[in-house]
Amino acid sequence: MAVVVTGCAGFIGSNLVDRLLAQGQEVIGLDNFSTGQIRFLEGALKDPKFRLIRGDILDLERLKDCFRGGESVFHLAANADVRFGGDHPRKDLEQNTIATHNVLEAMRANGIKRVAFSSTGSVYGEAPVIPTPENAPFPVQTSLYGASKLASEGLIAAYCETFGFQSFIFRFVSILGERYTHGHVFDFLKQLEQDPTRLRVLGNGKQRKSYLYVQDCIDAIQLAMATAKDTVNIFNLGVDSYVEVNDSIGWIGEALGVTPQLEYTGGDRGWVGDNPFIFLDTAKIQALGWTPKLTIREGIVKTVDFLRANPWVMEARE
Amino acid sequence: MAVVVTGCAGFIGSNLVDRLLAQGQEVIGLDNFSTGQIRFLEGALKDPKFRLIRGDILDLERLKDCFRGGESVFHLAANADVRFGGDHPRKDLEQNTIATHNVLEAMRANGIKRVAFSSTGSVYGEAPVIPTPENAPFPVQTSLYGASKLASEGLIAAYCETFGFQSFIFRFVSILGERYTHGHVFDFLKQLEQDPTRLRVLGNGKQRKSYLYVQDCIDAIQLAMATAKDTVNIFNLGVDSYVEVNDSIGWIGEALGVTPQLEYTGGDRGWVGDNPFIFLDTAKIQALGWTPKLTIREGIVKTVDFLRANPWVMEARE
Repeated sequence: MAVVVTGCAGFIGSNLVDRLLAQGQEVIGLDNFSTGQIRFLEGALKDPKFRLIRGDILDLERLKDCFRGGESVFHLAANADVRFGGDHPRKDLEQNTIATHNVLEAMRANGIKRVAFSSTGSVYGEAPVIPTPENAPFPVQTSLYGASKLASEGLIAAYCETFGFQSFIFRFVSILGERYTHGHVFDFLKQLEQDPTRLRVLGNGKQRKSYLYVQDCIDAIQLAMATAKDTVNIFNLGVDSYVEVNDSIGWIGEALGVTPQLEYTGGDRGWVGDNPFIFLDTAKIQALGWTPKLTIREGIVKTVDFLRANPWVMEARE
Repeated sequence: MAVVVTGCAGFIGSNLVDRLLAQGQEVIGLDNFSTGQIRFLEGALKDPKFRLIRGDILDLERLKDCFRGGESVFHLAANADVRFGGDHPRKDLEQNTIATHNVLEAMRANGIKRVAFSSTGSVYGEAPVIPTPENAPFPVQTSLYGASKLASEGLIAAYCETFGFQSFIFRFVSILGERYTHGHVFDFLKQLEQDPTRLRVLGNGKQRKSYLYVQDCIDAIQLAMATAKDTVNIFNLGVDSYVEVNDSIGWIGEALGVTPQLEYTGGDRGWVGDNPFIFLDTAKIQALGWTPKLTIREGIVKTVDFLRANPWVMEARE
């Protein structure tokens, strides 16, 4: 029986595929390559236990075929861009909410009952409790992205109750590391490549955010799925600290050997719906015995190193 | 400028339309008559200030036309049946979540920025805190219906942040009163009409639920919209008490002058996903000066009286 990974050519998806294959798992990977990169699957494609299917998750009939022979699903395919929701308000609904519904229906059609889902700390909106635990007060959404992920979580939980599924829902902070293809480290590197003397920073640079290294993230996902026994298992994933965007700029500059002049766009948020302080309480996953191996700073430096060693990634995402 | 009411021929929608017209408002009503009843609009249709549009909310272009000239929207159109979600898992997604997205897009296309939404206490799932306040712990969904309404709430809040809308989200207990067309009073009356000596009760009859009379519900909606000033205003609507299904059976029997033998299907829930105890904390709406005029018992008796005086309603919903 195979494990199905949607979004298998993406940042987290391709790292997960490599991990599963290294563990001897059979893997069916699905991607529409809208943002996924075939080069992220170079290693996987050499493994006879990996089967890649090019297809769109919005095509339910194709999805049902795809899931044949699966025993569990990692649903990672998504529109992962929180910042531009207002420019195309249907994208999050389709790529995240309706897509998740399709995944659940394709599971049901194939008798698959176990699903892991990449949700986000954005579902907490501007949380009144920081660090924010999984059972924080009922949140008010502040982005179309967060709303679409919240909707997906709700669908998954309802399928668990209605159809006897078991689910593992992970609310991530921003993830960093090899194959990272968007976010502030990416944006800053791109700017500094063009002009190392200046850096435009959205907001005032004092936004406080938490980050997690992708391999630590996958460790946590696998531990939770091996250990947690509830019908709906929800875990925050992040590190026990946060940094200011300004700290991150310092570390990136140091790694590149540049000291750009900083130009702030101003205000306490980078964009409409930007959350100026994201910091999750991760006591629940830590209680299972997990701790992240890399600090935020180490994760940022690893990401910089990866992007510098793989300039094609930045070109591919022009 | 007109007020737009989606689901205008439904139970709550048609009562709201009558209220708005009595207050001298211009009203544009939309319904696809899948469950709405044209006879509920008999009075409204005599009023030149009422314009009825037959149309489906899933047809976005038609919806945009419909909303022309509107200044605010009461979005009440929905699949309101929590019980049969598992029989057609896409219905709640389409009729509730995608429908709400369409309403928000049609508002945006017409420059309308004020929306009231009929949500549900079902979004709390099986709440760990009872009576359940609006800021209860982050809920886990237990029904496709609840999940679809939660998703709608999230979309509405995200539109408020992204596009400068103002919203009023009402989490209802079950509503009772004139033009009531589904739920336990309806089901029991129908059974007793066919055979007044027996009544089949889902579960053990000890489920505890709260109910609110439709005119009290409309009073609360109007007060909240006249008073609350936040961008996203969320209110529980219900009474300060709850009853057991068995209590309700006693009152219905008394009103009909029958004492049926009760046949319980057993278990503490009526169906998969049934919540055995729904009781909302309504301190927030009461703080604005609202109190319900009818008790649960009075609401149930009014509902029985209405259904007996209007047998066509029960026939129309065979």
